[in-house]
Amino acid sequence: MSAPADPLVIFTPSGRRGHVPPGTTLLDAGRALGVDIDATCGGRGICGRCAVVPAFGSFPKHGINVDASHVSAEMSLEAEYRRESGMAQDRRLSCLCNVEGDLVIDVPPESQVHRQVVRKELSVRPFELDPVLRLYQVSVEPPELGTVGGDLTRTFEALERESGLENLTAGLRATHELQSALRDGDWTVTVAIRDGRELVAAWPDFKDRVLGVAIDIGSTTIAAHLVDLASGDVLASGGAMNPQIRYGEDLMSRVSYAMLHAEGAAEMTKAVRGAIDKLTATLANRVGVKRADILELAIVGNPIMHHLLLGLDPTPLGAAPFALATDRSVETDAVGLGLHAHPGARVYVLPCIAGHVGADTAGVLLAEQPERVAADRPTLIVDVGTNAELVLVSGGRLLAASSPTGPAFEGAQISSGQRAAPGAIERVRIDRQTLEPRFKVIGVEAWSDDAGFEPALAEAGTGVTGICGSGIVEVIAELFLAGVITPDGTIDGSLATRSPRIVADGRTFSYLLHAPKDGQRVVVTQNDVRAIQLAKAALYAGARLLMDHAAVESVSEVRLAGAFGSQIDPLHALILGLVPDCELPSVRAAGNAAGAGALIALLSGASRREIEATVRRVEKIETAVEPRFQAHFVEAMAIPHRTAPTTNLAKVVELPAPREIEPRQSSSRPPNRRRAATVATAVEER
Amino acid sequence: MSAPADPLVIFTPSGRRGHVPPGTTLLDAGRALGVDIDATCGGRGICGRCAVVPAFGSFPKHGINVDASHVSAEMSLEAEYRRESGMAQDRRLSCLCNVEGDLVIDVPPESQVHRQVVRKELSVRPFELDPVLRLYQVSVEPPELGTVGGDLTRTFEALERESGLENLTAGLRATHELQSALRDGDWTVTVAIRDGRELVAAWPDFKDRVLGVAIDIGSTTIAAHLVDLASGDVLASGGAMNPQIRYGEDLMSRVSYAMLHAEGAAEMTKAVRGAIDKLTATLANRVGVKRADILELAIVGNPIMHHLLLGLDPTPLGAAPFALATDRSVETDAVGLGLHAHPGARVYVLPCIAGHVGADTAGVLLAEQPERVAADRPTLIVDVGTNAELVLVSGGRLLAASSPTGPAFEGAQISSGQRAAPGAIERVRIDRQTLEPRFKVIGVEAWSDDAGFEPALAEAGTGVTGICGSGIVEVIAELFLAGVITPDGTIDGSLATRSPRIVADGRTFSYLLHAPKDGQRVVVTQNDVRAIQLAKAALYAGARLLMDHAAVESVSEVRLAGAFGSQIDPLHALILGLVPDCELPSVRAAGNAAGAGALIALLSGASRREIEATVRRVEKIETAVEPRFQAHFVEAMAIPHRTAPTTNLAKVVELPAPREIEPRQSSSRPPNRRRAATVATAVEER
Repeated sequence: MSAPADPLVIFTPSGRRGHVPPGTTLLDAGRALGVDIDATCGGRGICGRCAVVPAFGSFPKHGINVDASHVSAEMSLEAEYRRESGMAQDRRLSCLCNVEGDLVIDVPPESQVHRQVVRKELSVRPFELDPVLRLYQVSVEPPELGTVGGDLTRTFEALERESGLENLTAGLRATHELQSALRDGDWTVTVAIRDGRELVAAWPDFKDRVLGVAIDIGSTTIAAHLVDLASGDVLASGGAMNPQIRYGEDLMSRVSYAMLHAEGAAEMTKAVRGAIDKLTATLANRVGVKRADILELAIVGNPIMHHLLLGLDPTPLGAAPFALATDRSVETDAVGLGLHAHPGARVYVLPCIAGHVGADTAGVLLAEQPERVAADRPTLIVDVGTNAELVLVSGGRLLAASSPTGPAFEGAQISSGQRAAPGAIERVRIDRQTLEPRFKVIGVEAWSDDAGFEPALAEAGTGVTGICGSGIVEVIAELFLAGVITPDGTIDGSLATRSPRIVADGRTFSYLLHAPKDGQRVVVTQNDVRAIQLAKAALYAGARLLMDHAAVESVSEVRLAGAFGSQIDPLHALILGLVPDCELPSVRAAGNAAGAGALIALLSGASRREIEATVRRVEKIETAVEPRFQAHFVEAMAIPHRTAPTTNLAKVVELPAPREIEPRQSSSRPPNRRRAATVATAVEER
Repeated sequence: MSAPADPLVIFTPSGRRGHVPPGTTLLDAGRALGVDIDATCGGRGICGRCAVVPAFGSFPKHGINVDASHVSAEMSLEAEYRRESGMAQDRRLSCLCNVEGDLVIDVPPESQVHRQVVRKELSVRPFELDPVLRLYQVSVEPPELGTVGGDLTRTFEALERESGLENLTAGLRATHELQSALRDGDWTVTVAIRDGRELVAAWPDFKDRVLGVAIDIGSTTIAAHLVDLASGDVLASGGAMNPQIRYGEDLMSRVSYAMLHAEGAAEMTKAVRGAIDKLTATLANRVGVKRADILELAIVGNPIMHHLLLGLDPTPLGAAPFALATDRSVETDAVGLGLHAHPGARVYVLPCIAGHVGADTAGVLLAEQPERVAADRPTLIVDVGTNAELVLVSGGRLLAASSPTGPAFEGAQISSGQRAAPGAIERVRIDRQTLEPRFKVIGVEAWSDDAGFEPALAEAGTGVTGICGSGIVEVIAELFLAGVITPDGTIDGSLATRSPRIVADGRTFSYLLHAPKDGQRVVVTQNDVRAIQLAKAALYAGARLLMDHAAVESVSEVRLAGAFGSQIDPLHALILGLVPDCELPSVRAAGNAAGAGALIALLSGASRREIEATVRRVEKIETAVEPRFQAHFVEAMAIPHRTAPTTNLAKVVELPAPREIEPRQSSSRPPNRRRAATVATAVEER
């Protein structure tokens, strides 16, 4: 096919090079040399995806000189495209421009099939697009009397001829769709090819955009992103409540519902599928696209959400040994899940890792790239929901566990608690002297002590309705810093003399965070403090257990994934002892990493193979069978501040004076004596 | 694993041999040496499928002596199976019996997975079973806290461990089915594995039989065979009318219906699917099995039946260029075709060959094994329906065409014609002197001139209702032999003086085949003769065209497939000139070869790959664009008898005296002058 006497063609930035015969199109030259240039229209000068930039001049490094005569002159079709699209003068359509001499050709990022995608708005790491679906416009030989081959075979032959696709298959439905598209399109159609292997859709017109949806099913909310599958552009994002909430606020109550009602699981399956379908419709309507153009969905969720979505029985997940029906990725038809999309649309569900560590954590792993964590920097990734799912990356190992935090971090089981919604207190500061609070409410920019607060609150129209997870964490940490809460978690009633905000509440005391003359009071009770202590002890104990298994004494980095992880202040998380000791700047929010993982899986076939391999090498640690978990849990009940000598926490906040801890006879869970003692030592050392 | 010092094990009849360590089970030894011994229960001593016969004595050919100590002693489980099943004393369960020394082991046919199947009742050639689905009973590790792997993964691990199956997959539905089967079966289940790759079904109990259905969809009737997929046994066979008949008697009228009615094709699709479903239910009920045990279906049909079954648009098949939507085999879900079977059941539809040469012909090819036809014995395979589909096998080539015979051979467009059903005249003899007929009626054993005929007819209760395709061919051939019909196809009115059965009918004459005092007259009119002439000329011309393309002057063998092909007498077919000249004994009925092909495809995965490869190398000859077809057609209108000098026809029947042929001005299709002349010559040469 080619010989050293033929022109030398060098592609940048890939550096791929080789000799191709004169007259070869730049597109074919690229294909021959393994450069994957995008081209939907198959060389018809319609889509413009294949534009490249030939470079002219002397290239001593390559030993060649290139002038304009080394590419063929512009023909009318290319000129027409340039006129209509405004394509820059230095660009050429590689499908229409031929090699006539030695060349250096730059393939700009937007013309590379495997281009880098940067998604700032979703805080998704840059990743390489590897489209699962690609579109090809193709002209198929019309049938003639005596023609060999049916519509499908002739289409495959044309695709092989024009785009080098081999060994294609098609299911019955796609065969039927192709049959009519070929006739409606007068034998020129656009087809969608999945994984380079299967024809899954056909349209009679030229089409250069198909859509995908990335979905993160949380117990409380469902988040979805509608995406252009070719460019990776997020067209619309949105959320909806998970309607399964009416069957149970937390996961275990939903499993109970499934156990107690014959059709319970089926009802919840129907509910979540309906919500996804509606949410997808909303997003499509918002940007004026048709759901029939959705060809691919990628979904994450915790194991119970995963099983309920797929119609698998969730009840084995409700009790030991928490057996997953499958820990593999699942591929299925969208129509089989009752979702309205293109009838050939497929759903990819990321693999669950263990009975309590779900596809959402797989998404987090895909987003957070544990393989990039340095071997000597143990990194803890925490996704806090009703269960906290934890992954420790250490020395090339991946260890995962789930901690039963309960729903306190989501504002449930807290007297004034509520979900993160307009009207909820999300941030709190307490004056160390006066014990007076200032706070911020979701939906209002101003703090409560700003002049503009009341008018803004009135405008928002919500009032102050309660306190959400991040608010409760902050208020308890602030109360600890102000000395209102002791290290063992008691609200110090003796301070009632100093501040009217400390009020007796039976045999314990409460803190009045917000007490308007008319309206809802927001109170932090002793029980609220206990609930948060239990939750954070569980979270901490899970992390410690992973550290034990990895044989590390400290972590270098903590990443807080999920909505709660994004809302809480790393400082307050450290003060409360939610996570193991760590340098404050090394504790960071990872955003909706599970959703970001779904998006990456949606847009990259390579990433699917990657996460499937990653999940297989995760070491699953079952907290329920580890005696050390209980020991860590008991130890972690106290409210410590940052204890390690490396801390800079003391420079940032004024820590309360140390006190001796009195073991509480009434508590079944003794406070963290060792850590409390260390706190005292650390503070004394200052 | 093994060494020359280990015992030598030789399997017969395969001849496979090798050394295996002592203590290896005979089953594992077979697997290690590539001998595929059946074993559903996976070595539990339940199914008995793996029974083998160790041979004892001296084997000088192999240089070994074998005595009973070379196999392990019978343990209780095997003894129990022997007691309950009555297994012969010389047999051993290979899963429970170990190699202890050199051995020669015979694997009886019923223990071979790829055993030969002989189906006499369906006249299916012997073929090798290659089950698409195999059952495995497997014990899966129960989940334990800290267990790695979901239900699916643990099941796959057990299958790999116990049966060597690797890289298995499962769809969502099967995953769900497995999830509950594992629990209901207390972690021991039977699973069905398709193509050695995909888990498609799971049952909590031990199961050793799943079913398949082979279906031949004809324009008029649908035939189905319910089969045990493991043994190949046909449990029940049956037929049903194709309800599409109400949309049009012949294929083209059904395509017209689809063209003229928006939902026409969909109605016909629904009708045929419903009929298949009902027929399958009838067969299952007849033998008392559940349709839920049907896991595989294989279907053949002509292109229009094929497209209508699959919901593909049949209208492109109604006009030139007769484009198939696909000429590949189709695999799809039974549930998607509205068929009640196991929800994981798959349907395999054999590939169509060309616009007029369908999956039924692919079935015929699979049954008739053209690859076994000697290169120097050109063989014509004819499947007569509304269209005749023809395949010529010659010199290693395969040529196919379709001839537009119209429905006359099926009794349609014949004045007293009817389908082959009780009451129809199917065989006819005419006395050369008296011109009196004797005939046989479907459903009555006696001929019409037997004493028992009238009572038997009365008992059958049908009366004589008409004449079917084979009857019309015979009566016209007999009328020709009796001199009533001239070689140009005219009913000779001058004979009206000799017999009251020749009666004037306007300007032409008819023959009164049956004229009871009270009841239906059965008449052969001049138009009937013309209709048969047109049909047989089309059939003959198609065959001649294939012979032209293959450059052969004669065929060595003719095989008549299909119901009509089974009914007609080869002698009469040759007398009428339906098929090219051939030795009479070399013209034979092939039975329902299309249905036999469906059965073979159902029971053998290897046969599917075989027919897919065969179909690809068929040379498709389009009669409509071949000018020679018209020429052959015109030539073939006359009624010749056997003309070649090799004939023995003249020894079998008394041929009429030759006459000069008068060209008929009124006919647009001149009679076969050349052939008629040859007839005269041949007869003169006697």
